Amino acid sequence: VQSKLPAVGTTIFTVMSALAAEKGAVNLGQGFPDFDCDPRLVGAVTQAMTRGLNQYPPMTGVPALREAVAAKVQALHGHRYDAGSEITITAGATQAIITAILAVVRPGDEVIVLEPCYDSYVPNIELAGGTVVRVPLTPGSFRPDFDRIAAAINGRTRALLINTPHNPSATVWTREEMLRLSQLLAPTEVLLISDEVYEHMVFDGQAHQSAARFPGLAARAFIVSSFGKTYHVTGWKVGFVAAPAPLSAEFRKVHQFNVFTVNTPVQHGLAQYMADPAPYRDLPAFYQRKRDLFREGLARTRLRLLPSEGSYFQCVDISGVSDLAEDAFCQWLTSEIGVAAIPLSAFYGDGFDQRVVRFCFAKKDETLRLALERLARL
Amino acid sequence: VQSKLPAVGTTIFTVMSALAAEKGAVNLGQGFPDFDCDPRLVGAVTQAMTRGLNQYPPMTGVPALREAVAAKVQALHGHRYDAGSEITITAGATQAIITAILAVVRPGDEVIVLEPCYDSYVPNIELAGGTVVRVPLTPGSFRPDFDRIAAAINGRTRALLINTPHNPSATVWTREEMLRLSQLLAPTEVLLISDEVYEHMVFDGQAHQSAARFPGLAARAFIVSSFGKTYHVTGWKVGFVAAPAPLSAEFRKVHQFNVFTVNTPVQHGLAQYMADPAPYRDLPAFYQRKRDLFREGLARTRLRLLPSEGSYFQCVDISGVSDLAEDAFCQWLTSEIGVAAIPLSAFYGDGFDQRVVRFCFAKKDETLRLALERLARL
Ligand SMILES: CSCCC(=O)C(=O)O
Ligand SMILES: CSCCC(=O)C(=O)O
Repeated sequence: VQSKLPAVGTTIFTVMSALAAEKGAVNLGQGFPDFDCDPRLVGAVTQAMTRGLNQYPPMTGVPALREAVAAKVQALHGHRYDAGSEITITAGATQAIITAILAVVRPGDEVIVLEPCYDSYVPNIELAGGTVVRVPLTPGSFRPDFDRIAAAINGRTRALLINTPHNPSATVWTREEMLRLSQLLAPTEVLLISDEVYEHMVFDGQAHQSAARFPGLAARAFIVSSFGKTYHVTGWKVGFVAAPAPLSAEFRKVHQFNVFTVNTPVQHGLAQYMADPAPYRDLPAFYQRKRDLFREGLARTRLRLLPSEGSYFQCVDISGVSDLAEDAFCQWLTSEIGVAAIPLSAFYGDGFDQRVVRFCFAKKDETLRLALERLARL
Repeated sequence: VQSKLPAVGTTIFTVMSALAAEKGAVNLGQGFPDFDCDPRLVGAVTQAMTRGLNQYPPMTGVPALREAVAAKVQALHGHRYDAGSEITITAGATQAIITAILAVVRPGDEVIVLEPCYDSYVPNIELAGGTVVRVPLTPGSFRPDFDRIAAAINGRTRALLINTPHNPSATVWTREEMLRLSQLLAPTEVLLISDEVYEHMVFDGQAHQSAARFPGLAARAFIVSSFGKTYHVTGWKVGFVAAPAPLSAEFRKVHQFNVFTVNTPVQHGLAQYMADPAPYRDLPAFYQRKRDLFREGLARTRLRLLPSEGSYFQCVDISGVSDLAEDAFCQWLTSEIGVAAIPLSAFYGDGFDQRVVRFCFAKKDETLRLALERLARL
């Protein structure tokens, strides 16, 4: 068969995780914790299975979980979504994003992505028959460049994808930036897909500026998040989308014919677990401590630290250490130094190489220390 | 937003389940068991969660589960799929089918569906930009009409979707029919998507004729099945696709950017549980007994029984009982008699009404007896 996605290979995350395993390297590549979730969460899911909650849940998700999400968004961001018609539980954030795109993007529509960006966005748009319009974030700072975003918008622009806290750059959009975006989109009919999977990992006392906080954005936005990232269960593949009722209605038409619905006992377990806000309230401090531990160690190498305002990533400039291209450097680092990282070029359509690689610090302290020991050789 | 799927409403299964709940009716509509799964399966998943298997599994699925699937298919059908490159674990059969379609159907391609058919097929094809070509199964018998299938195939035909055991008609394709199909497709490049989710529910000593048994079909087929149906856990949303390596490669390109991967502890639990073949070996007898119990009761009403060769469905002709259209009859039956059923018209694009409705007998004996008591009033 002739490929519909000829440019798509195996994701860099899979490639680097496999290489890390083969070489016995410390895997700071793919973004997932190497520590376990709260046993109470396992207990809650077990209880749901044992109680026999193992058949189809409602297509849109278990009501108690949709309620818990609506309550949390309201508490944190002051915007009330209707749990019945505006919250949908998804098989992870990736499935939420492709579903939103398939629901609203028609052949010929343009969709703007801000590069560097997560590797699923572009093939998702292509599968919907849309045209990808790549706008770079400001080189060096990775902040949104509103003049370039404005210049990319035209009558064919169907949607804009943003991501904050940002993977891979670890920047977090400010309130002012979100307001700028809101003003910029106000005269348009451009929809917003806001990938907020790292919503609870924002550091240094800042607050996550969810699109839900800005009425002009919330009215046009699919807000996507991930229980897997928040509760240290990336393998459970469960997320949610919040969107105004008319957008949610279109989303659900595709969702019901994509996955139909999502694991029942996991949903019940999460709903019960979310009654306690402590796990997500404590998350910024938990990850900030890991970030700081990791940064202190890196500061003693010739890798140059970039800011890490949020997410669970830390980027470094490698130009003081190596002349290798980013991807060759990451392979060398994995094989020879024993620490896996992800090249930023993997997040660009043209493989743009700015001598920056990404580490994930969602790891046990001992894992981070072992990685730092090895990186000290640089 | 203007809808991309204007014809899509809430699925009939959701509508009838909601009405059944509202009216306190016995729900023989949506296809799911009202009894629980084997506690050993819950135990195996719990053990995986407790052992900390809660982060991303490999994109294509947990190796032990892919191996278990390959071994089972080989034992039952004599065809060896390579677990590494030819089996992919999916978030249910629905996600497997849409992923196969998105992977191979291009705008303008024709895809043949045999009506009546499951309600996700048509919107799946539309989302890929394909043209749906509807070929009816033989009216009355619901057997494949090979002359009409042959007549529908042309140079633009990209794929044919079949489903055996068949939902909703409960027919099972014979070896001769599969051979006919194999001959018919031999001179073409038409791909086959074979929905075999009821593979272990075939009655009266017959064998399921998987496309895997026919080399000419296996070489061009995505074979889709469901652990949820086989192991009484429809709410776990986990299935698989088996396809030759080049087809699997295209499938995985879309899969990795649709759901990326599937719940880790569920996969480990299933892999462990599948070591014992008894649960699926005993399934035909288990469901045949329920079918017979249900048919004996229905035979005492004026509903006319159609054959039920496989699946967990039983269709009946309502013309001796009511002049209502199928959908009105199902609403009346739910509200006034207290038993929910699904109109066959929901499985046709044009709502074709042949005075037949579908019951699901994947229910506790006491549930079936209660339904039969109520149906005795007909
Ligand atoms: C779905 S695998 C990638 C995990 C992740 O979000 C990342 O590493 O960027
Ligand atoms: C996914 S809900 C429908 C379940 C089912 O397969 C059916 O009732 O036909």
